[in-house]
Amino acid sequence: MIELSLIGIGTGNPQHMTLQAIGALNAQDLILIPNKGSGKDDLAGLRREICNRVIEGNGPRIVEFSLPVRDEAIKSYRKRVDDWHDAIAEIWWQNLSAGLPEGGKAGFLVWGDPSLYDSTMRIAERLQKLADIKLTVIPGITSIQALTAAHAIPVNEIGAPFTITTGRQLRENGWPDSAETLVIMLDGECSFQSIAPEGVEIFWTAYAGMENQISVSGPLAEVSSQIMETRAKARAEHGWIMDIYLLRRG
Amino acid sequence: MIELSLIGIGTGNPQHMTLQAIGALNAQDLILIPNKGSGKDDLAGLRREICNRVIEGNGPRIVEFSLPVRDEAIKSYRKRVDDWHDAIAEIWWQNLSAGLPEGGKAGFLVWGDPSLYDSTMRIAERLQKLADIKLTVIPGITSIQALTAAHAIPVNEIGAPFTITTGRQLRENGWPDSAETLVIMLDGECSFQSIAPEGVEIFWTAYAGMENQISVSGPLAEVSSQIMETRAKARAEHGWIMDIYLLRRG
Repeated sequence: MIELSLIGIGTGNPQHMTLQAIGALNAQDLILIPNKGSGKDDLAGLRREICNRVIEGNGPRIVEFSLPVRDEAIKSYRKRVDDWHDAIAEIWWQNLSAGLPEGGKAGFLVWGDPSLYDSTMRIAERLQKLADIKLTVIPGITSIQALTAAHAIPVNEIGAPFTITTGRQLRENGWPDSAETLVIMLDGECSFQSIAPEGVEIFWTAYAGMENQISVSGPLAEVSSQIMETRAKARAEHGWIMDIYLLRRG
Repeated sequence: MIELSLIGIGTGNPQHMTLQAIGALNAQDLILIPNKGSGKDDLAGLRREICNRVIEGNGPRIVEFSLPVRDEAIKSYRKRVDDWHDAIAEIWWQNLSAGLPEGGKAGFLVWGDPSLYDSTMRIAERLQKLADIKLTVIPGITSIQALTAAHAIPVNEIGAPFTITTGRQLRENGWPDSAETLVIMLDGECSFQSIAPEGVEIFWTAYAGMENQISVSGPLAEVSSQIMETRAKARAEHGWIMDIYLLRRG
């Protein structure tokens, strides 16, 4: 039997690691690190660096593998993602069965927390259909928490709801009625441009929690173009960008 | 000047502490620990235990103080909370100005993350009006992450929004239109009873992340009474309870 641990490692700041995550990394026989190829090598490198920092003595074997790419020819978003997850599960299984032919403990480092807008748990569910795999989840600091810490703001107003959603949802469905606070994730297109800016405040952070973290906040009408320029410049400099923002109205 | 750090310490599992939080605790001159009085002494005790475990050598001075109680005679929820926060800020300021007459670094341990349904940041904002105080926020593992880790489930469906809200909101306003997934916090009244259970799954955890964690999940129609019985029994045994749950429909 394989025990698979999905280990939340925070948002790229090695100081975000919990004692539980460090313990879990040290307890594995095998650690799988995906390599997304050029332009995102920073991320595989950061995973390796985190392992090097926290693993003591004769730690687990570390195996790197290349991720497949999504087939952008598939029109349905859901089907495109489903097929991609199937392909990733196949590669995980090749590596797990080759690396632990007699079973054992395998770990996978997940940015942020494994529960939040991350495909790792869905891939693990696919693996559980292929083999006897026990799944453990170790929580990690999310980019939402890194964002609110960067701005030193509460995420909710007192006793009030808030909605976590994606850039695509904001563009396609507008501001949902349920909440005066939104957190927008997975947004490659500055989707805040799609809403009426009057009365809306934005708190934006790129590379949340990392050394090169950048934050901008203010009335959306006033800082919208500043955020777009800052984002474009940072992306060009680093070759990649991860950003997140909170919108509050009323 | 006083540098005030609000330090997220996770949900009561000392293994949830991040390296950043441990570093921050060790770097303080003074740590304030509130004491909520009988029945909740477990929590002040856990804060002390966490300090004892992670503070090395001649650490910061630790000062305990009693929290005021909310004036339940004030009818408006918002006003009741506002007045209570004013009274807490007053006590913080007495302790900070007495403990650090020449300025310095003061820390406050916050369960979970300081941004999430927690009054500490609002009290810190009040302090900033009284004195020159620099505020730093250290993120921590929230009960939401402890909940989803306990059940090994994603919080969101693929690319879909989810709403974090309170028991009171669910009772008074029903299921919001914006999302098929809700996370319910601050619920002392099993407010899941107030919604139609058909087609709804619940993932419930008490003492999330702690040693005595209890989890129940299943179709709401089938497990609702089991959760209420389990909750009542656990509350009677421990003298207090903290619970959280996720609802998913469709």
